[in-house]
Amino acid sequence: MRLLVIGASAAGLSAATHARRLDPRLDVTVLEKSNVVSLGLCGLPYFVEGRVPDWAWLLARPPEYFSRMQIDVRTGKEAVAIRHAARRVRLAGGEELAYDKLVIACGARAEPGPEGSFSMSTLAGAIHLREHLETTKPGEARVAGGGYIGLEAVEALRARGRRVALSHAGPDLLDRADPWLTGRIVRHLERCRVEVRLNERIRAAAAGECLVWAAGLRPNVGLAAEAGVETGRSGAIRVTDRMETNLGSVYAAGDCIEVTHRVTGRPVWMPLGTTANKTGRVAGAAAAGRLERFPGIAGTSIVRVCGLGIGLTGLSEGQARQEGFQPVTAIIDARDRAAYFCGRPASVQLVADRISGRLLGGAVIGEYGVEGRVNTIATALGAGMDAEGFAGLDLAYAPPYSPPWDPLLLAGRQLLKLLN
Amino acid sequence: MRLLVIGASAAGLSAATHARRLDPRLDVTVLEKSNVVSLGLCGLPYFVEGRVPDWAWLLARPPEYFSRMQIDVRTGKEAVAIRHAARRVRLAGGEELAYDKLVIACGARAEPGPEGSFSMSTLAGAIHLREHLETTKPGEARVAGGGYIGLEAVEALRARGRRVALSHAGPDLLDRADPWLTGRIVRHLERCRVEVRLNERIRAAAAGECLVWAAGLRPNVGLAAEAGVETGRSGAIRVTDRMETNLGSVYAAGDCIEVTHRVTGRPVWMPLGTTANKTGRVAGAAAAGRLERFPGIAGTSIVRVCGLGIGLTGLSEGQARQEGFQPVTAIIDARDRAAYFCGRPASVQLVADRISGRLLGGAVIGEYGVEGRVNTIATALGAGMDAEGFAGLDLAYAPPYSPPWDPLLLAGRQLLKLLN
Repeated sequence: MRLLVIGASAAGLSAATHARRLDPRLDVTVLEKSNVVSLGLCGLPYFVEGRVPDWAWLLARPPEYFSRMQIDVRTGKEAVAIRHAARRVRLAGGEELAYDKLVIACGARAEPGPEGSFSMSTLAGAIHLREHLETTKPGEARVAGGGYIGLEAVEALRARGRRVALSHAGPDLLDRADPWLTGRIVRHLERCRVEVRLNERIRAAAAGECLVWAAGLRPNVGLAAEAGVETGRSGAIRVTDRMETNLGSVYAAGDCIEVTHRVTGRPVWMPLGTTANKTGRVAGAAAAGRLERFPGIAGTSIVRVCGLGIGLTGLSEGQARQEGFQPVTAIIDARDRAAYFCGRPASVQLVADRISGRLLGGAVIGEYGVEGRVNTIATALGAGMDAEGFAGLDLAYAPPYSPPWDPLLLAGRQLLKLLN
Repeated sequence: MRLLVIGASAAGLSAATHARRLDPRLDVTVLEKSNVVSLGLCGLPYFVEGRVPDWAWLLARPPEYFSRMQIDVRTGKEAVAIRHAARRVRLAGGEELAYDKLVIACGARAEPGPEGSFSMSTLAGAIHLREHLETTKPGEARVAGGGYIGLEAVEALRARGRRVALSHAGPDLLDRADPWLTGRIVRHLERCRVEVRLNERIRAAAAGECLVWAAGLRPNVGLAAEAGVETGRSGAIRVTDRMETNLGSVYAAGDCIEVTHRVTGRPVWMPLGTTANKTGRVAGAAAAGRLERFPGIAGTSIVRVCGLGIGLTGLSEGQARQEGFQPVTAIIDARDRAAYFCGRPASVQLVADRISGRLLGGAVIGEYGVEGRVNTIATALGAGMDAEGFAGLDLAYAPPYSPPWDPLLLAGRQLLKLLN
């Protein structure tokens, strides 16, 4: 029995290793079109920045790991067609490989930017950009795209001492339909000497300009779709909570699939490394005949730009309205810790549904404790908690870590007031 | 209508200010036996350490705040008897004050240590200790008591460069019945050159020894009990979730009351600043005729000792067994962040009930992100989440903040394995 996995990044390798552990008799083969396996793509901005001196530092597992696990990882092998009726995958060059179970983990791809632009979405792109920064030493750079990759590019370029401008095609950063959030990020960036232009669509790099293209990420579904694998409204592959596609014995995982948003119950495409790891595991279990389920996402993410942490989960007010809720939003500005522990400003936004009182989402902005506070909100969302439950949480307090009234609880109280 | 509040620390002042906001016609009077009002006691260790140069930095509110709020705060006034039949409180010196509503917020008191020992539980004690450290400059010090105040005393004394020994009367630190936790703290302290002696009861200070007494904290209930206010099994005042005592129009809040533990449903005495603020508010609301409820605690706390953060919530395995659960415990050692973000060791312990799968408690130990991770567990406890729900949480990931598999999720997976 052969399990074939297409793609040797987070999702594909999670599927392969989990399936291997669950069923030692399985023949597990992984196809990877590049020559690099197990690369943590989320680290590329820090490779461009220089904090990660060598991209080998970004390998989640050393190559030996897979041979030790008896997983046959074949690099430089591009799958070009899935012939599902024959249970075979054709590779570039014509070779064919048979499978009994197939996991598609083709990830996402950035739409190519204008000629001469750089990309941070692939290792080759990041290496090319870093070489350019180190050899040509441009004094200025422009980033096109205000999603998280774009913001991480801004951080990397500023850390290298470049003057940076950020252009974003839409009105709101981070795809969140949240003017408050956008305003906060823009003010911070401007204080950090980053020029921000919203609603500006870049079509070409100016002569000599260092343009980093960080827009237009799409699920990589061509191969799957041609084989008859269904995609959803988001354009990504539609799967069950066991990562089953519409084709028998064919599973998909990672940045090429859509997953259920637990707040709305609807499928969304939100490509993130942690979800890729989890859905990969579930796909591996399914391929090995075991029942594991992916419970969906709460829409949690975090990004750091020029020292500011921005944690998001669930829905913003704008998103909640689009989904048919009647959102109420509380926003508070507080301090993250006691003043004598150098407490710094921290803002918390909480969104709840006016009818049910149920918490729908939140955002945390600050320099310290952002990930913990957004995870606390994400946990409340995972539990379907309402505003009253949230405001009554028993959170940890000691002066090195928080003020006596945690900003989360202040926001919870504010939310309760607005709901009553 | 007069609201009289006994005690001008976190609980008493929260009650007074909240009642004042809810009912501007109320005559609000607060009695305080010392001359200091609104002092954040949790900051005293950092005053002893010297990080807080002046104790005035620890005032949560400036004195003007209360006059502006038309709250009559009377310092140097010790209540010596509550004559509830007459609705009067007698002060030392004989003066009597009438009340319609009474809030008792007498806090906790440390049992006096042996002669010549120092205390960090009161402002006077902390000032005395700091003066001793700065003038006599003892090279060594001993701390008696391995609760959180004792550990904070160790941190303060080490920060001042003293050799420190810690003696604890029982076998387990932090009152948690958790040998794993005790072992981890002891190893850390020993690496920091702190000598730890468990099961050692100190009865006297050796000649010339700087002994800091941090043991024997008790709820301060004498005044209340003499007036007929009932106490519970813990020895602290028994209250409803509106902070009502057994006497009509008499409420209690803060470190002198017991509160409901949401995991066990039973009353416990766990004096912490954040709970004092919350229960004070609820008592103030009740005194002002408004309905607010305190949902209880999850038993969440955090303490830092010599740079190590220790976050606790819910029950340890030992405590869970005492409460009649059949606990299962997962412990994992991981890294708090990506290696190239200087990720450091972090440990997570999760306890669940074998029968129901329900999460019962957890502990997080590390240098970074401890408060956020323990708050995430506390939120799951607040929601009554089971191990499967916890393992399926969507937590934030980006390299500056966490590894792709957060230590919490690794612990959750481990827990699921043990339960199946």
